[in-house]
Amino acid sequence: MSLGALWVRTAWLGEPHTDVRIVMSGGRITEIQTGVGPQADDVVRNGLAIPGLVNAHSHAFHRMLRGRSYDGIGSFWSWQREMYRLAECLTPQSYERVATAVFTEMVLAGITTVGEFHYIHHDADGTPYADRNAMGEALVTAAAASGIRLTLIDVCYLRGWFDRPVSGVQRRFSDGSVGAWRDRIAGLQASATVRHAVAIHSVRAVAEHDITSVASFARSRAMPLHAHVSEQPRENAACIEHTGLTPTALLARAGAIGNLFTAVHATHLETDDLATLGAGGVTACMCPTTERDLGDGIGPSTELIAAGVAIAVGSDSQATIDILEEMRLVELHERLVTNRRGSHSTADLLRMGTENGARSLGWPDTGRIEVGALADITVVSMESVRTTGDPRNVASRAVFSATAADVTDTIVGGEAVVLDGNHVRHGDGVALAREAQALVAE
Amino acid sequence: MSLGALWVRTAWLGEPHTDVRIVMSGGRITEIQTGVGPQADDVVRNGLAIPGLVNAHSHAFHRMLRGRSYDGIGSFWSWQREMYRLAECLTPQSYERVATAVFTEMVLAGITTVGEFHYIHHDADGTPYADRNAMGEALVTAAAASGIRLTLIDVCYLRGWFDRPVSGVQRRFSDGSVGAWRDRIAGLQASATVRHAVAIHSVRAVAEHDITSVASFARSRAMPLHAHVSEQPRENAACIEHTGLTPTALLARAGAIGNLFTAVHATHLETDDLATLGAGGVTACMCPTTERDLGDGIGPSTELIAAGVAIAVGSDSQATIDILEEMRLVELHERLVTNRRGSHSTADLLRMGTENGARSLGWPDTGRIEVGALADITVVSMESVRTTGDPRNVASRAVFSATAADVTDTIVGGEAVVLDGNHVRHGDGVALAREAQALVAE
Repeated sequence: MSLGALWVRTAWLGEPHTDVRIVMSGGRITEIQTGVGPQADDVVRNGLAIPGLVNAHSHAFHRMLRGRSYDGIGSFWSWQREMYRLAECLTPQSYERVATAVFTEMVLAGITTVGEFHYIHHDADGTPYADRNAMGEALVTAAAASGIRLTLIDVCYLRGWFDRPVSGVQRRFSDGSVGAWRDRIAGLQASATVRHAVAIHSVRAVAEHDITSVASFARSRAMPLHAHVSEQPRENAACIEHTGLTPTALLARAGAIGNLFTAVHATHLETDDLATLGAGGVTACMCPTTERDLGDGIGPSTELIAAGVAIAVGSDSQATIDILEEMRLVELHERLVTNRRGSHSTADLLRMGTENGARSLGWPDTGRIEVGALADITVVSMESVRTTGDPRNVASRAVFSATAADVTDTIVGGEAVVLDGNHVRHGDGVALAREAQALVAE
Repeated sequence: MSLGALWVRTAWLGEPHTDVRIVMSGGRITEIQTGVGPQADDVVRNGLAIPGLVNAHSHAFHRMLRGRSYDGIGSFWSWQREMYRLAECLTPQSYERVATAVFTEMVLAGITTVGEFHYIHHDADGTPYADRNAMGEALVTAAAASGIRLTLIDVCYLRGWFDRPVSGVQRRFSDGSVGAWRDRIAGLQASATVRHAVAIHSVRAVAEHDITSVASFARSRAMPLHAHVSEQPRENAACIEHTGLTPTALLARAGAIGNLFTAVHATHLETDDLATLGAGGVTACMCPTTERDLGDGIGPSTELIAAGVAIAVGSDSQATIDILEEMRLVELHERLVTNRRGSHSTADLLRMGTENGARSLGWPDTGRIEVGALADITVVSMESVRTTGDPRNVASRAVFSATAADVTDTIVGGEAVVLDGNHVRHGDGVALAREAQALVAE
């Protein structure tokens, strides 16, 4: 359903404004009026409109592990074994249904744009599908079905560890060479709601000379380039052992660092790494609910910003799908480390979950409610028993008290995808989620 | 509305059971049938029934600060100034309305029992009210109006710091002497849904010989005794400076430690403190969302349990009111510290938010779904888009993925207080919350 205009009690336009009318046409915001009443045919909401939330790092299929891996002692690495078991069973058909369910959960949570870090490229034994991009296209189909804007981040993954080839399920991830990877992704096409980006899975999965090739490919096309960076101390130690460099230093020497680069996690960094990332003008995509769930640790958000790095956020492993929580955890985890409050303002946190993520994913034309931007808007109820409170602090209350359950409306490119808490095509999303679950049941 | 029986798809009876019929009479559980169908007139739910959630440490009025104190640099101590400003303006009338709204938010979040750590005893200038327990009785009235089970923890607070008398708003907190405090609370009476406990506010607010008097009073009446313990490093340092002992060691020497004692927070403990608390068989009430919000730090949950301490949880400052989140954060914050997963099992976490809290508050007859226990039950939807998933792990999904928004039903002493997400008397609770907000607006 195409919207003509949205009227809200409060809108975040870099600061809060009241009685705001946002007019849309051709998928973009064409006019913003403040201090006015609604007009006939406007969609009218008493809540807070914020720029559509951006989930800058997602592995959609990990959602199927929710609740599956919680009991018993473990670590990131034992979780990875569970995740690999799940990755083994996926087909283009089930991958599409799983992603449709998970992207639908995302738009119900107010997410208008997702960056899907996609590395399951081939059949279970590593054989390319007849349609070599069958898996990537499953994600594109899923995004369209759920109404979310997608950056398909096609991941280059070529070895199992610094000194080991791929094995087992990892054969699904590898194209064998950068050349073959490049050939495959040449078949991918952008659209009004799909753009493309590329990634180096990590320094453990791609050798230095291959990193250079991927980075050069990305630069020549002005494409965003992502990589997992220093999520685990063990990855850092192995990188130093095998190359003499930290992951960040290795990426820099290989030519990957630049203002289209996003370092995903950036949890365990040396002082020199911070300077390198800052000088490169990169984005760091923190995934606090995942980094907490997997016991990764707390990333240096204040130091990253001081160095000149922009922070975006992602739901990553889908332990939860709640960008409001990801944003506030950047601040709240900093409090756990520093014993101080207010390292990041509400405005800064909102930028992490909107504008910074959008730029990281190659959508500089969204992430702000302003004339000319793509009409991606999320409305949060400020009248739930959890979010109601002092009217002077509506944005702080949204960032610190609201959850995905408080999102009432999600507008993507001027289309109402979620209205009054229900997806326009998929209702509460539960039937889709159950169908997906059944497809991957063991 | 008195329930005859609740039928649920799954119930947590120490482990998950399916197709469970819980029969209630006279406020207690009289029969539990598993693997059966519902009968006519049963309330039927497809979700997960868990023992009613217990909030073992609450300051209801702090809820009014939600969103008010987030921006700008600060610490626990700057937050305390904001909180004191709010405490100055409360009257018995507004205290009752605020508590009614907040207790209603609690039952909507599935909380069946709350321990209210109550220290605003007197009028704004410190003069006792004509009815000396007017403020405590406001809480009792509020609890009845919202349908929650209450332990009124009457707090002894006699000085502003180790070497300072009370000043400013603290005059509202102090009875002047332990004798006067004891005389005042002699007027409080228990009921079917209200029990009483006492507290030493903290070692900074009560001198050692007064701690001994309060502890002796509590012991003689077999009353639970609570105290804030080692929430902030500064409190520890000052205690050592003024007494030569850590707060725990001082409390032990004063005779406060015992199996009816609850150490609230217990965040910054020495090795000897852990041994002392463990040997005493105490409960530690962790308040992870508050300790995170205020930058207190992460308490040593694994070490406490290893020492023999039971852990309960509380919403404390009401940064959020979500005992499911408090429970999971005990585990998730441990992951941030240790980089390992699974220090606490789902069963252990559930015990923290139910049985352990109930015992800490003097309700050993609730916190478990078993025949003979008080009929306090919380139902969580496992069919929201956030909670749906692998059916084998329903309890883990509830603890790790559900929020207060997923609670559908709350039963207190066999009375349905929340049904299908709405409070039977107060609906979604928002009108009450707004009324309370207006009463304390600046």
